[in-house]
Amino acid sequence: MGALHEGHLSLVRQAAAENSDVFVSIYVNPTQFGINEDLDSYPKTWDADMEMLADVDNKLASTAGSGRISAVFAPTTKTMYPTLPPSSEIPGKGSFVLITPLGNVLEGASRPVFFRGVATVCMKLFNIVKPDRVYFGQKDVQQTVVIRRMVEDFHLDTEVKIGATRREPDGLALSSRNVYLGSRRRRVSTVLSQALKAAELQFVNGKRSRGDILWPANDVALSKALQQDELPAAMRARFEVDYISLADPDTLEEVDEVDETKGAILSGAIKMQPLEELQEGEDCGLGGDSMPVRLIDNIILKPSA
Amino acid sequence: MGALHEGHLSLVRQAAAENSDVFVSIYVNPTQFGINEDLDSYPKTWDADMEMLADVDNKLASTAGSGRISAVFAPTTKTMYPTLPPSSEIPGKGSFVLITPLGNVLEGASRPVFFRGVATVCMKLFNIVKPDRVYFGQKDVQQTVVIRRMVEDFHLDTEVKIGATRREPDGLALSSRNVYLGSRRRRVSTVLSQALKAAELQFVNGKRSRGDILWPANDVALSKALQQDELPAAMRARFEVDYISLADPDTLEEVDEVDETKGAILSGAIKMQPLEELQEGEDCGLGGDSMPVRLIDNIILKPSA
Repeated sequence: MGALHEGHLSLVRQAAAENSDVFVSIYVNPTQFGINEDLDSYPKTWDADMEMLADVDNKLASTAGSGRISAVFAPTTKTMYPTLPPSSEIPGKGSFVLITPLGNVLEGASRPVFFRGVATVCMKLFNIVKPDRVYFGQKDVQQTVVIRRMVEDFHLDTEVKIGATRREPDGLALSSRNVYLGSRRRRVSTVLSQALKAAELQFVNGKRSRGDILWPANDVALSKALQQDELPAAMRARFEVDYISLADPDTLEEVDEVDETKGAILSGAIKMQPLEELQEGEDCGLGGDSMPVRLIDNIILKPSA
Repeated sequence: MGALHEGHLSLVRQAAAENSDVFVSIYVNPTQFGINEDLDSYPKTWDADMEMLADVDNKLASTAGSGRISAVFAPTTKTMYPTLPPSSEIPGKGSFVLITPLGNVLEGASRPVFFRGVATVCMKLFNIVKPDRVYFGQKDVQQTVVIRRMVEDFHLDTEVKIGATRREPDGLALSSRNVYLGSRRRRVSTVLSQALKAAELQFVNGKRSRGDILWPANDVALSKALQQDELPAAMRARFEVDYISLADPDTLEEVDEVDETKGAILSGAIKMQPLEELQEGEDCGLGGDSMPVRLIDNIILKPSA
């Protein structure tokens, strides 16, 4: 969807290391945005994206044995939705791929058209480009599970590869939406990765039950929320936890106990609230920190070998 | 779906005339049957189907320049639905292709899961076989429109070819379901093609408005229904008209006036009722004429050149 960052670029590099020709698709897909979501305000940064890709491609050119970026595929909406205008409604008119119930839980619970739109547009992209391999970032973990399922159920002749989540030094997962975070919200936003890290530590230390794994994550989130509540409005950045989940890696159903042979997906979503009161000269994000920003993150709890 | 008849074979011959390798898929797809529909009783005639195909293929072998049947693809349900069991429910769990609103009108109005199942299984078949061309019979006209739309909207790299409806000498369209019609119901079943023929004649004679085109069709159906009503129970074969439609060829929306540049699809569905009283030694269909049989037919009103 453009607004490229190092996470996207790392996928391009991974693809170039494993393939001769890399196609980069840049398309802000309207059907995955709900009617009240941020399609219009989604950052569109075409020139900066092209510069970043040209820079990556130049470095690939001097890397022995590496593939290159062969094309940037940036279709029009008339190409992607040739017969009916793209609908964000439910049920909505059009041709759609539905992956249920995978697409209805977690992110899909609060964004009911999201995975319908993602699966639909990816099916089209795959059919147009016919890639040997497709690369998705681990950060959107539910998307990776939905795409894997679509590839299996529809016998799509491609291999799904997942690139690790890229993070800021303090742990915040890279996201195109991070540009909306001014420094105050940015500081508090690390609560999500810290909460997931606390839960992961429990798993690493041998804990397997839901309660044992998740309590420290909920504790980190609650402590940070209370800390913000106690600060004056001009200093705090409030947030709400949408969910902290411990789910089966194939079905995304919540689990009470992690199955050693399957592992689990630890994931979470928070909504950073708009700042209530700005300080004089404060370093604000794009949009002046006046809009809520939803952030997601996850950690894979790996099965034992 | 097997239960092959001359209509299917004519598609095989057409495919062999236009391609070197013909794949015949035979799969009774559970997701296109509603919960109360006839999946279990759908005629399954594997041995007879294979004999008919072998016979066709032998003749193709001695036809200069003709392709051959390279494979019969008869997958298991675990192949077609590898992750979740095939669901006939709405909304239903699984991975589906939805083509709306095309799939909701006409046949889809009385069979709400039908075109979801058809589109889903065809997408899978296309992805597995990767055919240059796919062949469908004109008789299932809404299916042809839905598949064409799916191919266009999802950029599937295949060409949709339609073979003409094959008919009995008295006009009845060939259908796997015709085996359920004993001779009494069989005689009355021609009402559908006759009704459509009467409407077509109006179009051929220059009529373009819905009323002018459809009234003779409705008249044929009503006269035949009254005629049957007046016969004694041991002699009559009652039927109900589900719909007689005059629709846009791309959107399947009912039209008030036929657009000369687009033409229209004239289609209908009737339900032959079970016989009320059998005669001694009467020639019955499979199942003893005790189950209703739904029949469909259509005629394309061609655009002016």
